Amino acid sequence: MPGIVECVPNISEGRRLDVIEGLAKVVVATPGVRLLDRTSDPDHNRSVFTFAGEADAVESAALALIDATYKVVDMRGHKGEHPRLGAVDVVPFVPLAGATMADCVAIAHRVGRVVAARHQVPVFFYAKAATRPERIRLPDIRKPEYEGLAAFLETTHVPDAGPRTLHPSAGAIVIGARPPLIAFNIELDSSDLKLAQRIAREIRESSGGLPGVQAKGFMLSDPPRAQVSMNLLDHTVTSLPQVWREVESRALSAGVRILRGELIGLIPLDAALAAAGNALLLGSLPRDRVIEAHFIE
Amino acid sequence: MPGIVECVPNISEGRRLDVIEGLAKVVVATPGVRLLDRTSDPDHNRSVFTFAGEADAVESAALALIDATYKVVDMRGHKGEHPRLGAVDVVPFVPLAGATMADCVAIAHRVGRVVAARHQVPVFFYAKAATRPERIRLPDIRKPEYEGLAAFLETTHVPDAGPRTLHPSAGAIVIGARPPLIAFNIELDSSDLKLAQRIAREIRESSGGLPGVQAKGFMLSDPPRAQVSMNLLDHTVTSLPQVWREVESRALSAGVRILRGELIGLIPLDAALAAAGNALLLGSLPRDRVIEAHFIE
Repeated sequence: MPGIVECVPNISEGRRLDVIEGLAKVVVATPGVRLLDRTSDPDHNRSVFTFAGEADAVESAALALIDATYKVVDMRGHKGEHPRLGAVDVVPFVPLAGATMADCVAIAHRVGRVVAARHQVPVFFYAKAATRPERIRLPDIRKPEYEGLAAFLETTHVPDAGPRTLHPSAGAIVIGARPPLIAFNIELDSSDLKLAQRIAREIRESSGGLPGVQAKGFMLSDPPRAQVSMNLLDHTVTSLPQVWREVESRALSAGVRILRGELIGLIPLDAALAAAGNALLLGSLPRDRVIEAHFIE
Repeated sequence: MPGIVECVPNISEGRRLDVIEGLAKVVVATPGVRLLDRTSDPDHNRSVFTFAGEADAVESAALALIDATYKVVDMRGHKGEHPRLGAVDVVPFVPLAGATMADCVAIAHRVGRVVAARHQVPVFFYAKAATRPERIRLPDIRKPEYEGLAAFLETTHVPDAGPRTLHPSAGAIVIGARPPLIAFNIELDSSDLKLAQRIAREIRESSGGLPGVQAKGFMLSDPPRAQVSMNLLDHTVTSLPQVWREVESRALSAGVRILRGELIGLIPLDAALAAAGNALLLGSLPRDRVIEAHFIE
């Protein structure tokens, strides 16, 4: 299959660094795959790997990582702040240069069927790979969490593949296809948590705001500062400059300026170029105007 | 030689489209070279090709283009607004991913020696490939123009390679190595040419402004609008956001806002990312935070 695909698996292990290191090595060992980013959070007890490469290679690496994780992560002892259903919690595939969303949906379904057959783990397909509307949003699928899921596997949570029985150590797995996601935070020059929460509420899609935007107000400590934390689920629908304007205008109305932005993980090239083009009032800044973009494999 | 090199030859032919098309085909015919951009201006009677690829391939393409141009462009009949010394007027080599400035200086010197030997054309090395301080700046070398150069070839303009005699049809050639150049214009919401000229004077290096910035005030017609037209010779020394701030603050002091930016030709990835990072108050936005940048050859 042609084209570059990104995969961003979330693993329910963020504390045992030797175990995480071993899993990262499994990814890197797959020829044609590059590990672009890795983040582990001990509070969440969760690690996120970002890797990419030719579609076939990424599919192999994802399967190898799932196999390896099931050997070393046991959900029966797992504690962490972040909601999760299984040892490998979520595995999204993202189309990049030359790959389509249909390619990624096909990969997600294929990987799901293999995992179900090989490990007897219940599999749910989400986002663009969802088989029904109530499985599009990840939070809806993940709501019962590992501890509560068994009770729903015969009713609301009949798996898309695999058994209707929770795997004791592996739990369940959610696999899907989605556009590149941008995790972006805006720090306000204020310690007014309520302001950040109000802005988040006003801009997020779930309360009638910007399409494809998830947002939450947080308090940072030392020094205490209010932060609007966001996921942009599809930057071609709602862009970074749009989100920036909406947050900034609301903050300024309250007499508060933006202190800084923070990018978590990676950004798609087109999203960065949209921000540059917007700042320089270029109208747009397409890829072919960027020298090096002509040399992306 | 490893790494990607860009070459931006300026050809003294901007009117005969069939001739220009033929020259573009010579570039494209070189394996491993991509023609990224081409611009022809009939008033200037000049064309600019932008091509890039593996260093060796780019060197071959540059030589092939010079050979081909000398067969079809004769300076004895050339008229145009833009200053020039020869049929192939300037040939800068620019290091991109994996190539160094030293690589490009070596290429420039090699190409110059081949052209001198093969065509008996006087060759001047400029910018980072210059052999003496007074040959760093292109305008200093080009001052006598084709029509006046013969008189200086024994004195101030002794060539770095080739004969001290002007080639009747090819003229002379200037070859060099330089960082990526950004040609960027800012259009003011005003028809005050004097304002644009004053801003240009204040920000350009030659009158004590920003290092590596060339700037000139222009008047656009229909509708009449003042424009600050700039070359950023090294965006790592003076960046697009810096230039933007300097122009904007001066315009705003005169009660004029910026209407739009205009990018001529191509922009280096790092310069675009600097603009995005600045707009999003990220501090910086390094390449490795951009997904696709990991897949630049």
